[in-house]
Amino acid sequence: MIVTLAPNASTEHIQEISNFLGRSGWKTTPVQTQSARYLVGIGSKEIDLRQVSQHTGVQDVHRVTDVYKLVSRAWKVKPTQIELGDGVVIGEGSLTVMAGPCSIEDEQQVAETVDFLSSQGVQVMRGGAFKPRSSPYSFRGVGLEGLKMFASIARAKRVKVITEVLDVSAIEPMLDYVDVFQVGARNSQNFTLLDELGRVDKPVLLKRGLSGTLEELLQSAEYIFSKGNEKVILCERGIRTYEKAYRNTLDLNAIPYLKEKSHLPVVVDPSHGIGLRKHVPTMALAGAVAGADGLLIEIHRCPEEALSDGAQTLSFEEAAELFKNLEKLAAAGIR
Amino acid sequence: MIVTLAPNASTEHIQEISNFLGRSGWKTTPVQTQSARYLVGIGSKEIDLRQVSQHTGVQDVHRVTDVYKLVSRAWKVKPTQIELGDGVVIGEGSLTVMAGPCSIEDEQQVAETVDFLSSQGVQVMRGGAFKPRSSPYSFRGVGLEGLKMFASIARAKRVKVITEVLDVSAIEPMLDYVDVFQVGARNSQNFTLLDELGRVDKPVLLKRGLSGTLEELLQSAEYIFSKGNEKVILCERGIRTYEKAYRNTLDLNAIPYLKEKSHLPVVVDPSHGIGLRKHVPTMALAGAVAGADGLLIEIHRCPEEALSDGAQTLSFEEAAELFKNLEKLAAAGIR
Amino acid sequence: MIVTLAPNASTEHIQEISNFLGRSGWKTTPVQTQSARYLVGIGSKEIDLRQVSQHTGVQDVHRVTDVYKLVSRAWKVKPTQIELGDGVVIGEGSLTVMAGPCSIEDEQQVAETVDFLSSQGVQVMRGGAFKPRSSPYSFRGVGLEGLKMFASIARAKRVKVITEVLDVSAIEPMLDYVDVFQVGARNSQNFTLLDELGRVDKPVLLKRGLSGTLEELLQSAEYIFSKGNEKVILCERGIRTYEKAYRNTLDLNAIPYLKEKSHLPVVVDPSHGIGLRKHVPTMALAGAVAGADGLLIEIHRCPEEALSDGAQTLSFEEAAELFKNLEKLAAAGIR
Amino acid sequence: MIVTLAPNASTEHIQEISNFLGRSGWKTTPVQTQSARYLVGIGSKEIDLRQVSQHTGVQDVHRVTDVYKLVSRAWKVKPTQIELGDGVVIGEGSLTVMAGPCSIEDEQQVAETVDFLSSQGVQVMRGGAFKPRSSPYSFRGVGLEGLKMFASIARAKRVKVITEVLDVSAIEPMLDYVDVFQVGARNSQNFTLLDELGRVDKPVLLKRGLSGTLEELLQSAEYIFSKGNEKVILCERGIRTYEKAYRNTLDLNAIPYLKEKSHLPVVVDPSHGIGLRKHVPTMALAGAVAGADGLLIEIHRCPEEALSDGAQTLSFEEAAELFKNLEKLAAAGIR
Repeated sequence: MIVTLAPNASTEHIQEISNFLGRSGWKTTPVQTQSARYLVGIGSKEIDLRQVSQHTGVQDVHRVTDVYKLVSRAWKVKPTQIELGDGVVIGEGSLTVMAGPCSIEDEQQVAETVDFLSSQGVQVMRGGAFKPRSSPYSFRGVGLEGLKMFASIARAKRVKVITEVLDVSAIEPMLDYVDVFQVGARNSQNFTLLDELGRVDKPVLLKRGLSGTLEELLQSAEYIFSKGNEKVILCERGIRTYEKAYRNTLDLNAIPYLKEKSHLPVVVDPSHGIGLRKHVPTMALAGAVAGADGLLIEIHRCPEEALSDGAQTLSFEEAAELFKNLEKLAAAGIR
Repeated sequence: MIVTLAPNASTEHIQEISNFLGRSGWKTTPVQTQSARYLVGIGSKEIDLRQVSQHTGVQDVHRVTDVYKLVSRAWKVKPTQIELGDGVVIGEGSLTVMAGPCSIEDEQQVAETVDFLSSQGVQVMRGGAFKPRSSPYSFRGVGLEGLKMFASIARAKRVKVITEVLDVSAIEPMLDYVDVFQVGARNSQNFTLLDELGRVDKPVLLKRGLSGTLEELLQSAEYIFSKGNEKVILCERGIRTYEKAYRNTLDLNAIPYLKEKSHLPVVVDPSHGIGLRKHVPTMALAGAVAGADGLLIEIHRCPEEALSDGAQTLSFEEAAELFKNLEKLAAAGIR
Repeated sequence: MIVTLAPNASTEHIQEISNFLGRSGWKTTPVQTQSARYLVGIGSKEIDLRQVSQHTGVQDVHRVTDVYKLVSRAWKVKPTQIELGDGVVIGEGSLTVMAGPCSIEDEQQVAETVDFLSSQGVQVMRGGAFKPRSSPYSFRGVGLEGLKMFASIARAKRVKVITEVLDVSAIEPMLDYVDVFQVGARNSQNFTLLDELGRVDKPVLLKRGLSGTLEELLQSAEYIFSKGNEKVILCERGIRTYEKAYRNTLDLNAIPYLKEKSHLPVVVDPSHGIGLRKHVPTMALAGAVAGADGLLIEIHRCPEEALSDGAQTLSFEEAAELFKNLEKLAAAGIR
Repeated sequence: MIVTLAPNASTEHIQEISNFLGRSGWKTTPVQTQSARYLVGIGSKEIDLRQVSQHTGVQDVHRVTDVYKLVSRAWKVKPTQIELGDGVVIGEGSLTVMAGPCSIEDEQQVAETVDFLSSQGVQVMRGGAFKPRSSPYSFRGVGLEGLKMFASIARAKRVKVITEVLDVSAIEPMLDYVDVFQVGARNSQNFTLLDELGRVDKPVLLKRGLSGTLEELLQSAEYIFSKGNEKVILCERGIRTYEKAYRNTLDLNAIPYLKEKSHLPVVVDPSHGIGLRKHVPTMALAGAVAGADGLLIEIHRCPEEALSDGAQTLSFEEAAELFKNLEKLAAAGIR
């Protein structure tokens, strides 16, 4: 159950509501986000919602039987729109493209990418400064200084920055140089990190775990939301299966399912989702048709020279071709 | 290696080629299909293909390093088109819709479905007469008499019949009443059945196994092809994963990958692929954009009354809406 | 619900019971096996079992809420023992070893294996005459003549024969040369084959599918049982996962779980379950400790020369060492 | 390649070796652990190891073709033994039992458990103070104060403490109250956490990820080792599959495989591995026979009242019975 509290609800009123629910067998958690205050009630006893709503301080009450609560569409039917500034909004109906290299390399690479994206009307650039790598001996990214450079070049052209955060201690130093924090598949259930990102006033793009269920993904989003940050974007990026023909198995079923169950925007990462450069554009289009609110695409001026993920990275020409096809889809009214 | 034999190649010539390859360390299997004769060579020794091609009786020679041979695109670059008659061709560029109930029930149901399909310009009807069921106590289909009724009503309106065959012994009795034999996921590696379908002059739609790899699917197709039947259609129908939110996980990565690796047509079954009625149309469109040559869709006048699979079956109204959206896609030139 | 019918129950009595259950909302299936007659009732309506048991012709009645019925332990608490003759019994408490090559090759190979097994006190020999292979170009076994040779040599030493059957049409020709029919993982849901094996008076060893659930395995066993053959042995042989370090992932959880849920004996195939020769003995011992009633082990005089599966096949020396360790386990009273 | 440096190797010598390897096309990473210094070389160029070993400062050189290096058995054949003090050693041949509740609750619970373990000769107690939970509304553990209480009671009886650490920031506060840090499945690729645990002088028990490959597990262990901490224990705890009959699928194949590939000790967690109380003892025994160096078992005086994981927790009586059977195994020389 979610009790949305009135803006003027007093501490005493809230306590009273909480006590009433407690006496009815419901455990409540008070939640204060950047936009509102709620009581999240967990319980299974019969209760008359009208009795709850009659308490002073209650704005409205919704029954939510999902294990996740505040991210559920059972409570908030209207899709959440997330503003990045300069008119960039994720979840408002059209498709937001976020493109860029797997790893930030140097000024020239960033500048070329920003220029290309601007010329294509793409307003969000992805790029890793801190890279999670299976082996401790692999390249682990250019770090904070690289991120600052990235942000400085991108913002000069009003291009937004999305980049991965690996650890709680990195949030604060990164804060000024990031427009969207990305949480990678391996951190999808790093609850400490999720807690802390809930205290930040920046959107968070949360990737599904390597073998994470959609219920787990939504519960991880609930961590961020219930700690205060309502600006959560869900991301399908392929799951691990027995199939060896591609890096991951992109699960496009997840798109309509997540959009049915949650009010949060859902984006697709076809680059990781198939891992084969020649098929990334096809899967990007399929993701768009499946209802995604955005796409995360790896591009590089010269994929063959990319420091990481070259095999799944599009050239600028391939990306431009994809963008043209995405426009065709939009023009045809199919999404 | 695939040696396509000249139409006039004599037994002696073929023997000579085979001997030559044997001496070079290659084991050959002679294949005679309904349209041509081949020698399939298995080996890894260095060999000069020009020497092979100089033999009398050789039409052309191709190196195929895939574990599957005759179904590989390494040998036959041009996509295979499969004609069902009355102008219905699968694999010629447009999308072939195959729709109908999970199970055939009675004359009225078949007649209503045929009428609906005809009114929509859909020329192929699916419908199970023999149903594979996990439990021996479940409804196992109307059987041969039901199939005869189905075929009689459908053919009166020039609608083609696709239906599942469960066993070698059923092929012969079914032959006259079937336009496309369907091999279900559970029989995807029933090699005896595949062998026998290789001897039949009817197209075969082969579904991927519940947890079958694409390499296994292509090797199963190779069984049918190498026994003589070149008319094989591949079908992605969702795989089994740990995700419990839907019946199967539709793997649309498989579409571009199979079309890259094989010359055979590829169709998608979104009904089984997600198993949730409300999301079947979305996944059908995504499959179309992913490049599928056809769609297998479960429809029923009244899904709530269907004898099986009602939860993933579209009503006629929902199906009509989907067909309209598929036309929009085609009109937009996206597929 | 399972109604065991009295030996002298008349057709009229059975009809009456069936009618009574029908009026109470339960659909019944009459089952006649080689040892008894039952009515299997499917339904969910409240019913007083005492009222059922008062009918003439009823021996006893059990409620079985599992989706499988006759193979459930909810009905038959006592473990089923399956006699192969000459004192060989599977499921009577000790461990039955079934060993031999993946494929039967020739007389010498069979004779050497039979001699080795006899010297070790092993009374059942496995060996494939018909091999299911992913590729149509692979060796598919020595066929019926090879099986006859195998049976003749083995039986001369009172060694029992277990071998795989691939197709309904092969059952009859194989019947005289087989002591246990094996159904492979790829045929685990070949319902036509299961139906026919239900009509045979020989034990059937049924392997779990490549990604088959235990519920599916038990329902497949129900097919055989409900068609008349109560002599079914369940087999865990490893499942397909994302792990690439071994051929399959042996799921030993399945052993105690299956033995809790079913009265049928359960055996383990560690050879396919890990696919790595050096670790097969370890996993065999672990399977024994997990409670298996038997082991299916691939052995060959010279694994390096085996026509198939050499990489997971034990030499006679390795097998003898394993048998010794199995005896230690038994002596220690651990199984 | 791993170059073990001589204790007296000077900075100049090390630089020279590194330069030589660099000129030969090998990238080196200097590693200083709590017991030795190494150069880890990554490369694929041909190189004569004797030339490397002739450099001053080199103690020995090993080629390691695995993607993991310092944790590989290709380099260090002798199994690693990890001392916890008071004579407790993991990896020295016998089986180390680590038992206790899923979550620490209160003094009485800890004291009763410690008493029970002491009476059984078990010297390591597990117990979570910080719990990773899918939902933000679930009980998240008693925290640091609870851990202090746990350590104080356990150490009074010379019982060692193993407990999970969720975050880098918690390492320092926990340090004095922990004998073994546990890294849970969800943090198996939390590289920041692994890095920091590499700087700690306490053993680390590292669990395999929910769908982690063994190669990934070993690479995660390499993170800890290469940052300085050689005391890493690997743990198999069940993987995620499509099977719904149990919580996870315990992969005992992993035990012999990991012990073949790595010199690190390997322990098994059957409680999470099957998640069904009645079958935990069976799987514990199977894990012991598979070669595990230790067991992690959830026990509780009254499993029905446990704050978490009650369904997979043994009572003291069940645990005592299991310990007796483990002794029988040891006495029989089977492990």
